Amino acid sequence: MSGDKEAGGNTAYGRKAFRRSPSHFADRITADGRDNWPVAAGRYRLVVSRACPWASRALVSRRLLGLEDALSLAVVDPIQDDRSWRFTLDPDGRDPVLGIRHLAEAYDRRETGYPGGVSVPALVDVASGRLVTNDYQRITLDLATEWTALHRPGAPDLYPEAHRDEIDEVMAGVYEDVNNGVYRTGFATGQAEYEKACTGVFRRLELLTARLERQRYLVGDTITEADIRLFTTLVRFDAVYHGHFKCNRWKLAESPVLWGYVRDLFQTPGFGDTVDFDHIKRHYYQVHTGINPTGIVPLGPDLSGWLTPHHREELGGRPFGDGTPPGPVPAGEEVPARGRP
Amino acid sequence: MSGDKEAGGNTAYGRKAFRRSPSHFADRITADGRDNWPVAAGRYRLVVSRACPWASRALVSRRLLGLEDALSLAVVDPIQDDRSWRFTLDPDGRDPVLGIRHLAEAYDRRETGYPGGVSVPALVDVASGRLVTNDYQRITLDLATEWTALHRPGAPDLYPEAHRDEIDEVMAGVYEDVNNGVYRTGFATGQAEYEKACTGVFRRLELLTARLERQRYLVGDTITEADIRLFTTLVRFDAVYHGHFKCNRWKLAESPVLWGYVRDLFQTPGFGDTVDFDHIKRHYYQVHTGINPTGIVPLGPDLSGWLTPHHREELGGRPFGDGTPPGPVPAGEEVPARGRP
Repeated sequence: MSGDKEAGGNTAYGRKAFRRSPSHFADRITADGRDNWPVAAGRYRLVVSRACPWASRALVSRRLLGLEDALSLAVVDPIQDDRSWRFTLDPDGRDPVLGIRHLAEAYDRRETGYPGGVSVPALVDVASGRLVTNDYQRITLDLATEWTALHRPGAPDLYPEAHRDEIDEVMAGVYEDVNNGVYRTGFATGQAEYEKACTGVFRRLELLTARLERQRYLVGDTITEADIRLFTTLVRFDAVYHGHFKCNRWKLAESPVLWGYVRDLFQTPGFGDTVDFDHIKRHYYQVHTGINPTGIVPLGPDLSGWLTPHHREELGGRPFGDGTPPGPVPAGEEVPARGRP
Repeated sequence: MSGDKEAGGNTAYGRKAFRRSPSHFADRITADGRDNWPVAAGRYRLVVSRACPWASRALVSRRLLGLEDALSLAVVDPIQDDRSWRFTLDPDGRDPVLGIRHLAEAYDRRETGYPGGVSVPALVDVASGRLVTNDYQRITLDLATEWTALHRPGAPDLYPEAHRDEIDEVMAGVYEDVNNGVYRTGFATGQAEYEKACTGVFRRLELLTARLERQRYLVGDTITEADIRLFTTLVRFDAVYHGHFKCNRWKLAESPVLWGYVRDLFQTPGFGDTVDFDHIKRHYYQVHTGINPTGIVPLGPDLSGWLTPHHREELGGRPFGDGTPPGPVPAGEEVPARGRP
């Protein structure tokens, strides 16, 4: 997302409550190509930051669905510069497929002089170099439901028809109070605004705790889109939201249910293998100088707990339904050791 | 201490590593009156901030030793203004005994135009209104060893002769790495400086954990000055040092040994009844705008755990040796409900 960068700068993080901008480019890549962007292997490139929870949804979905060969991946530097997300992790500072230095170039090719923010996740048409969509709320749903012809054998159904109403309802609360709630807490500029947002975060976490005490996953007995969206916030909770965003009533590590739930997912192929704690910590602590003027990145938290037994399998559940776990991370996409527990 | 305020301002917290100023006024109040300040009931007033760990040592010692009647107490506002610590909690903003609005006035009466910082704890001669000492390293040792004629019946020996070498050695390490180490961590202005200090904090906490795994108190089998000095830092650890000072490898609440140890002391009369979490949190988060520009005070951490069973009595130990616990907190000195678990 771009909200992160803006919030660390001078505009959105200022006099009024933090508000997340809607995605400007909402074309959809579909099986029927109704927006002129048909699903096709090798045609698009997924650009993400491993720091960003919104982009990380797509990282997880792509792995779970086995779309790695069909949809290539570009990972940006966790620290934006004044042109936003950049490909400084790649040789010569250019994305090797798109040939650009900044993601902004793909936005410019889509709309000249586009005045809005540059955000991830972004899907870019490789041949034209044009941005297709940065609609983080839609991208993963379409990966799950429109890209089915390219799914791996044994891919799970992440948005099962029979449970969509419940999934949508759970996700709406999680979005408001958790996914976005942590940002409203961290970027609050006044005490009352902070307290309202922080209270909302923990009230929702208590509700989710009650739900997850008895069942392994949020909806039904398999992993769904709802779990992916909660995971990408929870995996960052103790590392950045607890201290940096002052969501500090308790750490996840102090909550047996949620800590068990998030470790269960982390240890499931396709989740934890996408997470780079080094990118996460450096992004939040170095970019948001409005709340961390020194830019110092904390040494903690101790990550060793992530790989400890969670015992959630005792609750039953079938992680992949009638399907199977994804295979290993493709060569070249492994998270470096310094970002792993 | 004054270091807190300076660090939040523009001077000590700047280009070089955080350094704590030595106490300027080091006269001693002794049984023999060798510095012309003899121990005497009612003659001196102890000025503290309940936010300050250095001042809180004296709060605990005074309670454990039963010196409340002999040595009266003034509590300053947790938020300093540009003249430093002030008596805005008292009617008309004046200390009812000293008649002053700012502690600085007692410093001025001692030395006209004193250019240094104004710090707590401070002992003030009531009749002249002059500061006697702000020597935080010495004050509590003298309360324990020079004020004995005024101790309550059953007062513990907090600095027993037979153990002084060991107490001094333990306190030296605790001072360097823990009491002062958390400040060097929090006020570091560069990554390397931060990492060195933070690593030192947790290395020392690991050593203390090994020591306290087998014995209830730090030295011998009774509460000593060493426990008081470790307590006043540990009780603040999760509330302010963990997040605000980035001492975040783990919370104390995640360390069974240290969390048991600090709760044991907290629940011992004379320790927890001196602690005001509201003052602690507001002071750190509102004064240090250099590291918390918004001044927002977090809602967490949840304090309910402080009163839970610690089971440390199973390790044996005699908290007060041959003595007894102190009586209740004197009327008028109770910590308000909003500062208590």
